[in-house]
Amino acid sequence: MRNLPKVKGVKFATVEAGIKYSGRKDVFFAAFDPNTVVAGVFTKSKCSSAAVDFCRKNLKGGIARALVVNSGNANAFTGMKGEKAVELTAQIAAKQLSCDVSEVFLASTGVIGEPLDAEKFRQVLKASDLQSTPYIEPAKAIMTTDTYPKLISKTIQIGGVDIVINGIAKGAGMIAPDMATMLSFIFTDMPISADILQALLNKYIKTSFNSISIDSDTSTSDTVLVFATRQAGNSKIAPITDKKDKNAKIFGKALAEVLFDLAMMVVRDGEGASKFVKISVKGAKSNKSAKKIAFSIANSPLVKTAIAGEDANWGRVVMAIGKAGEPANRDKISIAFGSLLVAKNGEAAANYSEKAGSEYMKNNDIEIIVDVGINKGKASVYTCDLTHEYISINADYRS
Amino acid sequence: MRNLPKVKGVKFATVEAGIKYSGRKDVFFAAFDPNTVVAGVFTKSKCSSAAVDFCRKNLKGGIARALVVNSGNANAFTGMKGEKAVELTAQIAAKQLSCDVSEVFLASTGVIGEPLDAEKFRQVLKASDLQSTPYIEPAKAIMTTDTYPKLISKTIQIGGVDIVINGIAKGAGMIAPDMATMLSFIFTDMPISADILQALLNKYIKTSFNSISIDSDTSTSDTVLVFATRQAGNSKIAPITDKKDKNAKIFGKALAEVLFDLAMMVVRDGEGASKFVKISVKGAKSNKSAKKIAFSIANSPLVKTAIAGEDANWGRVVMAIGKAGEPANRDKISIAFGSLLVAKNGEAAANYSEKAGSEYMKNNDIEIIVDVGINKGKASVYTCDLTHEYISINADYRS
Repeated sequence: MRNLPKVKGVKFATVEAGIKYSGRKDVFFAAFDPNTVVAGVFTKSKCSSAAVDFCRKNLKGGIARALVVNSGNANAFTGMKGEKAVELTAQIAAKQLSCDVSEVFLASTGVIGEPLDAEKFRQVLKASDLQSTPYIEPAKAIMTTDTYPKLISKTIQIGGVDIVINGIAKGAGMIAPDMATMLSFIFTDMPISADILQALLNKYIKTSFNSISIDSDTSTSDTVLVFATRQAGNSKIAPITDKKDKNAKIFGKALAEVLFDLAMMVVRDGEGASKFVKISVKGAKSNKSAKKIAFSIANSPLVKTAIAGEDANWGRVVMAIGKAGEPANRDKISIAFGSLLVAKNGEAAANYSEKAGSEYMKNNDIEIIVDVGINKGKASVYTCDLTHEYISINADYRS
Repeated sequence: MRNLPKVKGVKFATVEAGIKYSGRKDVFFAAFDPNTVVAGVFTKSKCSSAAVDFCRKNLKGGIARALVVNSGNANAFTGMKGEKAVELTAQIAAKQLSCDVSEVFLASTGVIGEPLDAEKFRQVLKASDLQSTPYIEPAKAIMTTDTYPKLISKTIQIGGVDIVINGIAKGAGMIAPDMATMLSFIFTDMPISADILQALLNKYIKTSFNSISIDSDTSTSDTVLVFATRQAGNSKIAPITDKKDKNAKIFGKALAEVLFDLAMMVVRDGEGASKFVKISVKGAKSNKSAKKIAFSIANSPLVKTAIAGEDANWGRVVMAIGKAGEPANRDKISIAFGSLLVAKNGEAAANYSEKAGSEYMKNNDIEIIVDVGINKGKASVYTCDLTHEYISINADYRS
């Protein structure tokens, strides 16, 4: 998807600041018309980056006029220098757009621990460069180890009015439960209040970016921001200000799909991934317990290497269920690979053949379905396999 | 260490039952004189193997007369068949030694989910084969993906009497906090009661086998058993029956060293390991919090691949501290690689040079020291790096 539609009230530019990379654009500068609201969710890291701290503070205002994102340097673990870099970046952007620094949002991704020279933004952030398309450009500018730009658009009709939701994302490693070196920015013209937008984001982040894991590692900089310019329909439709509004459900569903599709693009681009893996757990004590078991399987190096080796080693799935520490009835556990029943009632299924298992593992998309035989809790998470390529990428990322 | 001394009251044989491997001994059968006490700790997996369940039950009696260990098949997740295999094995051993099945201890390691044919033990477990040495043989018989047998001995003097503590272990992958596909058996002639032996084991397992991780995966079969025949000194020294007895401290320290040394052998033999890594965390809220942070670093694939690549990527250490979810003061964190101060007060240390960092990472033994700036909690854990070789070993273990 390369030609996303315009979103009314959103303009942007991508520029080359030479922060780490050379010969490519590494900065995404977006401007929003007055009246734009914002919602956000961030990393749960206890060492969150200066930009994340800055966004958390500004999010309280609920209003956004600008977004500045750079790749190549995460400006994380840079002490006072990091905070100063964030402030200077916000000042430069605010000056260009004649807005307040409290209306500026920031994100940085790349190497941790190296000071970011924010003076470089002064030369390149220019209001005069702003345009409405094409969205492929910011999707490319925010990439680090990504192998392809990630972007998607969805248009829905509410009250006869077209509502556009565009999303971009980056991330390919350090992707774990509560997000990752994962940045995603969503732009919509939906008329909606900031609090409802935040409530919908909180709800649907759970089944999208918070249901994926590449390698169990969590970045200091994870950020998802949703900007709503509220210009669709030119006041023809009433803004959503109540979560019981039926339009909240319609818009929420579309937002959920955009978030989910972007999250799946991130998993499919997992560092070194050769296979896309869906883990579905049911029969757990609760949905939360199911998710914990599913992530225990998804993050197990032994499960992930078996998948890479196309080995139907379901014993390792049992191991990962066991180590999750959540209630599971060993003698009622069943495991299926796709539609192939592998184990039932705590032992190998009667009709299971190793040959059929091996055949299934040759697929590019693998689904592991587990029933732990306790109750009705269920959850699905998404991951990829662990390959030689992952080691190659990460053993010399900085070189 | 190949020639361990005899332990009075312990005899054993190693035999070839052809369970999975051919052309090598795969069974370790040990017999203990009457009056031998036993202590044990086991996996915390919710899907523990039939042998683990059996040992847990028998441990309540505190008395041991036999031990049967096989490699090649873990007899885990084998349902009722697994329980029957365990019972039959115990019956065969008990008959040979004229003891009760409640005095038999069992362990199995290898592939999960395949039924174990215990009839094979009937031909090979023979009281007439039992001998007092050499300990290298059982250390070899219990190996799976291990590249070398792991055994150690320590002799101490208590009241003028020589006390021998011999230990063997196996394990190279699926090694995580609360143990791993890790089996270890300790044999001593120390006069001691079962409850004190258990108390000492519970204490010192924390700083040995429960402080190591290869890949964060936990086996269904982890077992550490300590057998004390109580024959040293022929009643010349009073048995330890009170944990305040000064001999409990002396013997406990020696037991701790045996456990620690065996645990370190397991880490050094970590699947595909090219480097031995010690992670020391201090300044944490509590010792428990420090251990959680240390394991977060030790288990991070991004930290482990950086070490494999000899990349002094301390930013990933910060990431792993942050994702642990434990209290840490970002702006007071310091990180050292060995004696090289890398980061201080939440940013790169003033005198740190990338060149010195790279030079340090060329060592075979790496130490990462972290101060999280909160309180006085501290812990050390031990791990290895994550290499291409780990992927190769685990992507086709069963083939």
